[in-house]
Amino acid sequence: MKNDKERQSGDERQDALWQKPISRRDMLKMAGIGGAGLLLGGLATGGVLGAAGRLGAAEASSTFAEAGEAVEFYGSHQAGVATPAQDFICFAAFDLTTDDVNSVRRLFQKWTEAAAAMTGGVMIGDVNDNLNMPPSDTGEAAGLAPSKTTITFGVGPSFFDGRFGLAGKRPAALPDLPPFSGDELREEWTGGDIGVQVCANDMQIAFHAIRNLARIARGKAVLRWTQEGFQRSAQADPAGATPRNLMGFKDGTVNPDVRDEKTMNEVVWAQSSDGADWMSGGTYMVVRRIRIRVEVWDRSTLGDQEATFGRHRGSGAPLGSRSETDPVDLEAKDGKGEPLIPMNAHVRLARGDGTLRILRRSYSYSSGLDKKTGQLDAGLLFISYQRDIGKQFIPMQQRLASDRLNEYIVHNGSAVFACFPGVREGGYIGDTLL
Amino acid sequence: MKNDKERQSGDERQDALWQKPISRRDMLKMAGIGGAGLLLGGLATGGVLGAAGRLGAAEASSTFAEAGEAVEFYGSHQAGVATPAQDFICFAAFDLTTDDVNSVRRLFQKWTEAAAAMTGGVMIGDVNDNLNMPPSDTGEAAGLAPSKTTITFGVGPSFFDGRFGLAGKRPAALPDLPPFSGDELREEWTGGDIGVQVCANDMQIAFHAIRNLARIARGKAVLRWTQEGFQRSAQADPAGATPRNLMGFKDGTVNPDVRDEKTMNEVVWAQSSDGADWMSGGTYMVVRRIRIRVEVWDRSTLGDQEATFGRHRGSGAPLGSRSETDPVDLEAKDGKGEPLIPMNAHVRLARGDGTLRILRRSYSYSSGLDKKTGQLDAGLLFISYQRDIGKQFIPMQQRLASDRLNEYIVHNGSAVFACFPGVREGGYIGDTLL
Repeated sequence: MKNDKERQSGDERQDALWQKPISRRDMLKMAGIGGAGLLLGGLATGGVLGAAGRLGAAEASSTFAEAGEAVEFYGSHQAGVATPAQDFICFAAFDLTTDDVNSVRRLFQKWTEAAAAMTGGVMIGDVNDNLNMPPSDTGEAAGLAPSKTTITFGVGPSFFDGRFGLAGKRPAALPDLPPFSGDELREEWTGGDIGVQVCANDMQIAFHAIRNLARIARGKAVLRWTQEGFQRSAQADPAGATPRNLMGFKDGTVNPDVRDEKTMNEVVWAQSSDGADWMSGGTYMVVRRIRIRVEVWDRSTLGDQEATFGRHRGSGAPLGSRSETDPVDLEAKDGKGEPLIPMNAHVRLARGDGTLRILRRSYSYSSGLDKKTGQLDAGLLFISYQRDIGKQFIPMQQRLASDRLNEYIVHNGSAVFACFPGVREGGYIGDTLL
Repeated sequence: MKNDKERQSGDERQDALWQKPISRRDMLKMAGIGGAGLLLGGLATGGVLGAAGRLGAAEASSTFAEAGEAVEFYGSHQAGVATPAQDFICFAAFDLTTDDVNSVRRLFQKWTEAAAAMTGGVMIGDVNDNLNMPPSDTGEAAGLAPSKTTITFGVGPSFFDGRFGLAGKRPAALPDLPPFSGDELREEWTGGDIGVQVCANDMQIAFHAIRNLARIARGKAVLRWTQEGFQRSAQADPAGATPRNLMGFKDGTVNPDVRDEKTMNEVVWAQSSDGADWMSGGTYMVVRRIRIRVEVWDRSTLGDQEATFGRHRGSGAPLGSRSETDPVDLEAKDGKGEPLIPMNAHVRLARGDGTLRILRRSYSYSSGLDKKTGQLDAGLLFISYQRDIGKQFIPMQQRLASDRLNEYIVHNGSAVFACFPGVREGGYIGDTLL
């Protein structure tokens, strides 16, 4: 069989996609005679992006072409943190099966190469046409646009347990989480030596990334747990309103402005003065798998639901206010002198005195039925980024002990990771540590 | 708290979305000052749709606006069969907990109303603003474009077991499936009195539909199993090439043309002459949860992989041919006189003598890790529609007993359903039977 030759002389359009990096221009060529139309469409819809911006969501993709673009993998910070949230996430925690730090270094070097290829929308490796070898890329993302894929790597507390001679390098900003009120953590969704957040505007691409990273890790690391998630897609909400969680409420209204460098340095990015030099420019990630007791929530009244969040379901406005972005007035009282926003409402407790902030980057999840109860296993894959987990996430979560929302949710998975600084071209993830 | 009034006078843009059906014009208004730009964009990219058509995928959405449109729920056939495959699926099987046929009828009437609302992109019911009642819609799809949502209903063999006095009505075209070679069926993904296929270009909308149908069924039916799935999104592949499965191969190249009425009547739609009058215009659905042994597949050579499918991975062309749409020449020999397409290749066995055809409408799935093995539980949610399961699907599947692909897959879930004819406005699903 002369398949290699046949393939070369075969379907040229497909071949071009298969073998070469896909550029923005290739995307246009892909559309063939319609290329000019696509370009025109892209320019014409530029007006919408501006409009969406004025509506408060300049970051949202307004066209297929935009949603398909690449996000640069290399940079001073890892992508996937300040990057506007894509439509999908595949999160994976890995455990190392080697105790040789050189082996870990080689894994991180290979992962870096693969991640740069995948976020750029090109095939991993150069063995994709040799009939006598397993292909270096599993192929299911071949020909697809990069789709804003980001791959963000971090290491958990167990990475510093001594196996790799790095016990002295564990950052103070990466404490173990204490038990929280309402925790029902399950081993199957907890912990991990390494955490990888893959986000993309395409689920098949996100799955492809986790699968290929796991494949590359063979003999060095194994998957410990994974969780996929989604939010409403950009096409379903071209105006880019705040997404709703599976309780029907807008989620993420109060988030730091990722374009504000000063705020990001205060709230999210680890600074050289923080004590762990190798983490400077990195950040700390908290992942919590929060199941929503969907069936119970769905039987509660709208009044109960709004009192639970402290916001109106429809508009997202704080109770007693008119629009989503109105300031949360915790002092406001109703005609009887009772607080408009109940004392145990989620928005009140999450806010506290307003001095603690985190960058939330959560997704909804749905994982079929709970086999024990036959109820939906659905909820929130909560992800937050912060400069110091002990100073930011932990006190906030402790404040939520009396949260009225706790009647309807249960935390069944949990992990924390130190996410490396960004990688410069030629470097590899974790090179400031290893 | 005067929340109802406050909401009315609140964020007007959100209010409009919340309370009224969303039309194409509303979508443009939503984009506000950018509306004209969006319209222009839509017109300008019209050229691409034409181009995509010439590339063989006229059905694919080429813009956000198109991907967000509604598919009509009412009609002579149910939507979601001949409808070009959307990006996502949530499949759900239900078991009835009532044995009163009037109760089933009322459920189907309520489901019909809810399905018409959800596919139109509007809230279910009219109790969404009363603080003293649970909202009639759970709210997480509020404000989102309809996103080509389709909801397709069917009933399984157990529906005719006598509980509802319908044993005499079971169609001959809905046999139980016999055991197939390689089956490892698990109760948790098998059977069901009722099957519901929800497809949409937005995962949150698809989840919302299953969740609300389950909620409406409370006291009459419970979820038996669910499975979500995806394919590459339209934005990632604006040219609308044949999607790839998780083995990296193009899947669905040979499918009947859904726009050809004669073919659809021969292959897919039940005819009045078929013996079950109430099914005339309906169709029969087979669902198979097929896990791919991803880790084993990924260690096989490209040559093995291509010999397994009988096609080239890159182009999708039959082995020995140049492009995806080239006819499959089962007689072609290599220089040594051996068949170019091996005797046990999937494409050869699936095709047989070419007289049996089905409409495949499958999705990839990924469901975390298999707890026993730590390997990825990922594969194909195979769905096919046909006029007669006994005459079409069963002999095709039996022919696959010696399929080389069986080394790499295992069928662990299975169900069949008689999908009702389309519903006329004012009618309800199953009204020709009940």
